[in-house]
Amino acid sequence: MITVLRLGHRKKRDARLSTHCGLAARALGAGAIVYSGERDDRLLDSIRKVSKNWGGKFRASYEKDWRKTIRGYRGVKVHLTMYGLPIETRIAKIRRRRDVLVIIGGEKVPGPVYGMADYNLAVTNQPHSEVAALAIFLHEYFRGRELTKKFDGRLKIVLQEFGKKISI
Amino acid sequence: MITVLRLGHRKKRDARLSTHCGLAARALGAGAIVYSGERDDRLLDSIRKVSKNWGGKFRASYEKDWRKTIRGYRGVKVHLTMYGLPIETRIAKIRRRRDVLVIIGGEKVPGPVYGMADYNLAVTNQPHSEVAALAIFLHEYFRGRELTKKFDGRLKIVLQEFGKKISI
Repeated sequence: MITVLRLGHRKKRDARLSTHCGLAARALGAGAIVYSGERDDRLLDSIRKVSKNWGGKFRASYEKDWRKTIRGYRGVKVHLTMYGLPIETRIAKIRRRRDVLVIIGGEKVPGPVYGMADYNLAVTNQPHSEVAALAIFLHEYFRGRELTKKFDGRLKIVLQEFGKKISI
Repeated sequence: MITVLRLGHRKKRDARLSTHCGLAARALGAGAIVYSGERDDRLLDSIRKVSKNWGGKFRASYEKDWRKTIRGYRGVKVHLTMYGLPIETRIAKIRRRRDVLVIIGGEKVPGPVYGMADYNLAVTNQPHSEVAALAIFLHEYFRGRELTKKFDGRLKIVLQEFGKKISI
């Protein structure tokens, strides 16, 4: 199972980006997200509500002490950062591991994270977005199979070439 | 060349997400982004500043009339939406086209967009993030080659397994 650890959430500034991290993690095959930084129950509720309506077993939780989450994790710990080594040089090795903690930062990642991770991986060495980096990591890890994952939720999209349709 | 059209930008609410759209577009191989919605010069400046410092020829601009941008585009027009057809069923065909306009929404996408696009494509039919969807589209379009694109900017990351280093 893949667990995402989102560091340094700020209630006001990061509400929407952190929501996108959670929803992208869920949609692209991760099993859980742990938020650190400021506790934000509305954020947790919004992710849980999507899971309830759209299906799957994704879990969202809060942990104040991110060091504990990293230290206590028994799988491989991957920190996504523009300062890391190219993902394409390490992903084959990481793919062999069943349990992966994917650490993604907010604006400023505390220095110790780099040393606590087993891998510091870059999705390009250009500045961009933790949401985009997470998406590509998951897509590479699952080799695209995540795109056809079944969620069996109460809400479902009815496939159409043009237009919008949801079955309830 | 790939051009991204970001619809419905709202200065206050979307500042950071729209920035992530622009930076992810640039880092993952697109050539330009056009923002519609509210005009936001700070947003344009921040994307241009990254391009100036980190290299490449990425262009950011504003266009009030998104219909004009879509109608006037001479390549293939791809709208990313959770209501669309699975990306994995259409990407091979789209990959053959050199010029692609990738349309990504904000909170509410105007109905006509669905009909004006040549393709409405879903990166999973689950709710998640336009940044994640854009990232996976670009990664699939370029088959991962975007990850090794050279930018030759003034700023560059010096590869290291642990820690942070930028050369100036």
